Amino acid sequence: MGERDIIRDIFAPLTADAPGAFNLTDDAAVLDGGPYVVTKDVLIAGVHFRPKDPLDLVARKALRVNLSDLAAMGAKPEGYVLGCVWPGNIKRAAIEDFARGLGEDQAAYRVSLYGGDTTAHKLKSGPLTISVTMFGAPPKQGVTRRSTAGAGDDLYVTGSIGDAGLGLKALGREEKFTTVDKASLSGRYHLPEPRLSMGQAIAGLATAAIDLSDGLMIDVGRLAAASGLRAEIDAVSIPRSAAAAAWIARQDKRWRALAALSTFGDDYEIAFTAPQSMRRSVMMAAKASRTEVARIGSLTRGEGAVLLTETGAEIPTPRDGFDHFA
Amino acid sequence: MGERDIIRDIFAPLTADAPGAFNLTDDAAVLDGGPYVVTKDVLIAGVHFRPKDPLDLVARKALRVNLSDLAAMGAKPEGYVLGCVWPGNIKRAAIEDFARGLGEDQAAYRVSLYGGDTTAHKLKSGPLTISVTMFGAPPKQGVTRRSTAGAGDDLYVTGSIGDAGLGLKALGREEKFTTVDKASLSGRYHLPEPRLSMGQAIAGLATAAIDLSDGLMIDVGRLAAASGLRAEIDAVSIPRSAAAAAWIARQDKRWRALAALSTFGDDYEIAFTAPQSMRRSVMMAAKASRTEVARIGSLTRGEGAVLLTETGAEIPTPRDGFDHFA
Repeated sequence: MGERDIIRDIFAPLTADAPGAFNLTDDAAVLDGGPYVVTKDVLIAGVHFRPKDPLDLVARKALRVNLSDLAAMGAKPEGYVLGCVWPGNIKRAAIEDFARGLGEDQAAYRVSLYGGDTTAHKLKSGPLTISVTMFGAPPKQGVTRRSTAGAGDDLYVTGSIGDAGLGLKALGREEKFTTVDKASLSGRYHLPEPRLSMGQAIAGLATAAIDLSDGLMIDVGRLAAASGLRAEIDAVSIPRSAAAAAWIARQDKRWRALAALSTFGDDYEIAFTAPQSMRRSVMMAAKASRTEVARIGSLTRGEGAVLLTETGAEIPTPRDGFDHFA
Repeated sequence: MGERDIIRDIFAPLTADAPGAFNLTDDAAVLDGGPYVVTKDVLIAGVHFRPKDPLDLVARKALRVNLSDLAAMGAKPEGYVLGCVWPGNIKRAAIEDFARGLGEDQAAYRVSLYGGDTTAHKLKSGPLTISVTMFGAPPKQGVTRRSTAGAGDDLYVTGSIGDAGLGLKALGREEKFTTVDKASLSGRYHLPEPRLSMGQAIAGLATAAIDLSDGLMIDVGRLAAASGLRAEIDAVSIPRSAAAAAWIARQDKRWRALAALSTFGDDYEIAFTAPQSMRRSVMMAAKASRTEVARIGSLTRGEGAVLLTETGAEIPTPRDGFDHFA
């Protein structure tokens, strides 16, 4: 198996819908049109995914975490370039599994591979490292930023919170779940659902947005900090899946469990803000894009992001989310 | 040291000339304008650079190998997004060294950072891995492809061949060199010189081009294969630096030494083809862009890439260049 064979046989077919990719035979690709919204996320075995995760799912997650960034900005994805560093002892069949996953999500999200670089570690056991640069078209209303929330705005979040973190615990057998709950939670860990149609539907309506990768509290904290405001989140209004609700019900300290959910990573939901006067429009956008949306709090003058009980008491959060350098 | 501090203090200043980077506070960046030429190269410690190489030089090389891809296509570079996976035990000062190198070459090549992802290995000794996606504006004549050489075209190469490979041997003390030669050769290994102005000057004039990353023979072989032709290279016409010429003169088998030079990687020169009728225009483009250019052979009907003596005998080449999966 040579580098050329891998590129020609396994990756070049993924560029079929991208004439500017030149079938991966050139030094660079051409992206016609523009302007573009561009994002880049790197995934490393043992850090961002489990080393034994099926490679088709890893490939799809690598695309989806980037799609989620575009979703937060309201962009419509078009294509990506891919850098892979494979373990030194990788087998061709494993690369084929990976490419099959790419192909499935290319079809699901209508994006195409445009180019990249395929390399290998010197070490047989070097961790698979995947770098995706994804680009898309900005919404005509302009991209939704993080720093533009207003004081008094409502705070919303899509989908449900904490499932992927519970899925990771389920996969690692740190916690026990029913078979059904384990399947649903681990599915959320392996395959986040980028909220593209919702992100596009709220462009021009949302005052600010962020995708949740490191945990609700830390990421909403980032949006609040960028906007020079404080975020207050009503803990009970945080949307939970049935599996997460069952998990909370089994815990001794339920407030603490709820707080923990809000610090788990890998949600890839979107948190966004909008003026109170826009509540009806937000709900219509949610309905039109068939996305669950919950109003979970508001932005006020001040700083930080806090989780509050129904009576307004602050709930301490166990940690602030994942930090590669902490 | 936290991820946020690193991004805000060390990387955000590198976006000063790119308003669309939003000071690295958002989920994605906006690239105004377009169309774009886009390329991606990944560099791994121990594979693409020496683990002890100074990090400012590693950063500059990471930009330059991508700039070289754009040069081959005739594009004018504009900016890049950066993914870094640092060893788990990285120190802030090391990241600062790296960013200083980025800043130097950003100024030299007038490109800006637009965004990216900063992560770390779980392992303290995980290899530094750098993924750069570089984008630029295509030349108004259209990009120079690999697959469009014509039978009978001349084959040219910029600069000199094999220096970086000798530089690597000098750094690894595999071969002895004078102090002056060692400095010049290792400089060529650490800091390739992307041939941007020449690449732009020959857009519309060259029939095909490729940047030399894996070795003259393998890369010219790729150009020939993509064009459905055979490349014949006159070994004596391959441009050599004074240091490389001195090295050849010290070898017992000089033809073999010359052949070896043509298989060393990391040249980051451009090989290109042009019709014989364009010889004068090619030399004028070289002069205008202050780039050394040598005519080293031609494209003919057939396949493969061969190295020939003055009498037309084929010189066997020791290997075909670097392959990550071979």
